[in-house]
Amino acid sequence: MRSPTPSEGLLADEYALEMMRAYWLAGQHRRRVVKEVFFRKAPFGGRLALAVGINQVARYLAELKLSDEDLEYIAGLGFEPEFVEHLRGLRFTGTMRAVAEGTFVFPGEPIITLVGPIEELTYVEARILNIVNPQTLVATKAFRVVEAAEGDPVIEMGLRRAQGGDASIYHSRAAYIAGVDSTSNLEAGRLFGIPARGTHAHALVMLGGDEKEAFRLWAQSQVKLGRRPTFLIDTYDTLRSGLPNAIAVAREMGIRIGAVRLDSGDLAYLSKECRRILDEAGFRDAKIVASGDLDEYVIRDLKLQKAPIDMWGVGTNMVVAADQPSLGGVYKLTAVEENGAWSPRIKVSENPEKVTHPGGPKQLIRFRSKETGYYLADLLMLPDEPLPDPAQPFLIFDPVHTWKKTLLRNFTVEDLLLTYIQDGRQLLPDQPPDKVTAAAREWVAVQRKRFYEEIQRLTNPAAYKVDLSEPLWKLKMQMLESSTRH
Amino acid sequence: MRSPTPSEGLLADEYALEMMRAYWLAGQHRRRVVKEVFFRKAPFGGRLALAVGINQVARYLAELKLSDEDLEYIAGLGFEPEFVEHLRGLRFTGTMRAVAEGTFVFPGEPIITLVGPIEELTYVEARILNIVNPQTLVATKAFRVVEAAEGDPVIEMGLRRAQGGDASIYHSRAAYIAGVDSTSNLEAGRLFGIPARGTHAHALVMLGGDEKEAFRLWAQSQVKLGRRPTFLIDTYDTLRSGLPNAIAVAREMGIRIGAVRLDSGDLAYLSKECRRILDEAGFRDAKIVASGDLDEYVIRDLKLQKAPIDMWGVGTNMVVAADQPSLGGVYKLTAVEENGAWSPRIKVSENPEKVTHPGGPKQLIRFRSKETGYYLADLLMLPDEPLPDPAQPFLIFDPVHTWKKTLLRNFTVEDLLLTYIQDGRQLLPDQPPDKVTAAAREWVAVQRKRFYEEIQRLTNPAAYKVDLSEPLWKLKMQMLESSTRH
Repeated sequence: MRSPTPSEGLLADEYALEMMRAYWLAGQHRRRVVKEVFFRKAPFGGRLALAVGINQVARYLAELKLSDEDLEYIAGLGFEPEFVEHLRGLRFTGTMRAVAEGTFVFPGEPIITLVGPIEELTYVEARILNIVNPQTLVATKAFRVVEAAEGDPVIEMGLRRAQGGDASIYHSRAAYIAGVDSTSNLEAGRLFGIPARGTHAHALVMLGGDEKEAFRLWAQSQVKLGRRPTFLIDTYDTLRSGLPNAIAVAREMGIRIGAVRLDSGDLAYLSKECRRILDEAGFRDAKIVASGDLDEYVIRDLKLQKAPIDMWGVGTNMVVAADQPSLGGVYKLTAVEENGAWSPRIKVSENPEKVTHPGGPKQLIRFRSKETGYYLADLLMLPDEPLPDPAQPFLIFDPVHTWKKTLLRNFTVEDLLLTYIQDGRQLLPDQPPDKVTAAAREWVAVQRKRFYEEIQRLTNPAAYKVDLSEPLWKLKMQMLESSTRH
Repeated sequence: MRSPTPSEGLLADEYALEMMRAYWLAGQHRRRVVKEVFFRKAPFGGRLALAVGINQVARYLAELKLSDEDLEYIAGLGFEPEFVEHLRGLRFTGTMRAVAEGTFVFPGEPIITLVGPIEELTYVEARILNIVNPQTLVATKAFRVVEAAEGDPVIEMGLRRAQGGDASIYHSRAAYIAGVDSTSNLEAGRLFGIPARGTHAHALVMLGGDEKEAFRLWAQSQVKLGRRPTFLIDTYDTLRSGLPNAIAVAREMGIRIGAVRLDSGDLAYLSKECRRILDEAGFRDAKIVASGDLDEYVIRDLKLQKAPIDMWGVGTNMVVAADQPSLGGVYKLTAVEENGAWSPRIKVSENPEKVTHPGGPKQLIRFRSKETGYYLADLLMLPDEPLPDPAQPFLIFDPVHTWKKTLLRNFTVEDLLLTYIQDGRQLLPDQPPDKVTAAAREWVAVQRKRFYEEIQRLTNPAAYKVDLSEPLWKLKMQMLESSTRH
């Protein structure tokens, strides 16, 4: 099979072309609209998500263009030559505002707001979601794994089970941003500056058939680089063969053991036995690394049972987000320009959580206590509203149970939506991917301390208030009440 | 963020380099070994899987090479210059045998066998699994969806929820090979010759706020291309607004309705009501398309309730294989060359299904009845064994309960493993991706009729016999019995 070269320009749904063509035929294709990306429910039964993929979306928009080959393919689908020719000029000329890479976000909040001609905003829908949905999902999953590991290093090692090459590198990056320490994936390491780490496989032990000899070969090669070797000790029998052989080889060579790795069996029992035997043999500084179908729940349970594991290798369950492998992020029309003003749109649904917030492009702000440094609540506002005055107390309402109110005092206000692209022009400096990734990782570490840990709990976390400003709330209620069933 | 260009050459685990270096230091890096790819359990509670991704693996191996940039990155990890220089010559010089793209395979069977120097076979492990695992998984999932749809067309529309760009196109291809009819994904359409299809989104209806006007705009654009329009009728209220407006617009314009699409609500009730109303209004030839969180079980249940749905749009659940988002395909050492002969290796485990089949590279053959045309059983054999003689009855054993035997008569024998690469040289002609994809799709359709439908059942399917040849079985038993616990 010849090597197919994917074109990012065509990563779009065919129905986008059908709609763009309908608008174009009706002369409406340059009508300006607002689209917002948000999700309706936090994944994994949690409260929050880590928005990741935002920088990639900005790059995608900035580089949007159909090649001759793309246009030839589109012509072959039966569209008229005039329309195909019109598509040759397709660029993103609009404005993109979005949260910073790695920002903690909550259901219903706009992660990205786009303003621009409807044809452009129609075309980019699917690829934007294709970037943001899985990366946000996996970052959130990895954040939970890191929380469960309580400060122990976590290595991401999911390449062989990730859903493709892209997923392997971008999900490795998402996990690193969330706080994972290193990756097994060389290409993720190269692209994003993630430390790449590895030990050895069972195959090395099986090659000659003699475990001790394999450990010697391995230790010699590691020592030559000035490293203390990590031995994978479960190929035959962890406690009766692997561990004694590792200790024997280390003694014989007069070296320290860096770590022993457990990849099967009961990790609580085996880690305790290994710790005891290593300590008795004088290898108190040898670490214990565990891997094998781990996720946040297994790690939490092993911690509860006081398994003396120092480092966690997490693959499949994290990199595919096994217990919820998709995030339902959506991309909705919230306003249409009419006579120079935004005419709001709302998607009404019998399911209240599917009703959208009309109007826009919205502002999203986060209140932070001057006293404690903790974040207190978020607020969605219409575009023309002034930011709350930190000198005045501010009353926020529960959007569903409006009799529940909280008076905020002594706060600062953070404007969460940054302008990435203004009228087609990239505003953010063109930083290399490793710098962007490192900055996002640091931003996650900063936010982690600013949110109450009750909100970050793995199961049944406390609520976090996301309020609508009074004008936005009134607009929404008014539109809901006047939406007659046709 | 600058556009990062992924390098396929570095899609590998760091530990591969560590092991290759250990072999190289010990002068063992050119030692020839056998590695086999197989999975231990069919996904989704089924019996079989559709092997997909094989052609891509062959291409990956044929093109394997580390670029200057790759080598520079590796040098930066701290490996000695001599080793990095040695890696400059890394190519795949071995032999790859594998099943044809789209072949039905069963647990324990080698999908791919590789023979070659250990350093090469160590390096390529993770990427091979990263290609074959998800594509085989999604093809198998899609096959189940297609089975449930009982001949109705199925459209794949998972781009916005797929785990990345790669996943969206390769999983669209996997679904097409399995029998899905079309895709929403333009790039998948272009690369692999899959028909690309689409209708319109809710946003089109919400743009002007008037559903009838939106339907007019839409119908005019579709009619201009000589198509009968499909109307998405659930934006406001399916039965009170969407359907009556679609019918009114069609009557007013004097056109036929191609289809109406339901994307929410109870699909059984709504499709029956739509059918009745369309028929009464004289639109008997208008189809009903359904979408929204569908999978094989929902489709089966809707069929059981006689929902008059003609076409199924399936996205998220198929493209991420939601109920089991990873396949545990593994890559195991089964033999090492010693003095010009294969010395078998076995991975012993307390879990019998984790014990590997030693020796190799294996042969995999499939018996087919001359009388009925159905496949009867598969057989794994050691490399030097002659194929069973169709002129003689052949006795196969159940590999676990060996007292269960079946005497096969009047059969033909199919050798399932084709040679893709022989000593580094590609043997298969370099066909364009759309041809390879079409051939695989046809092969799936052929096989579907050759396997008893009892084996293809969605839940609790009948067993299919996968036997080990007597020499292989004896070798395995002998190695298991002599494997002393060290």
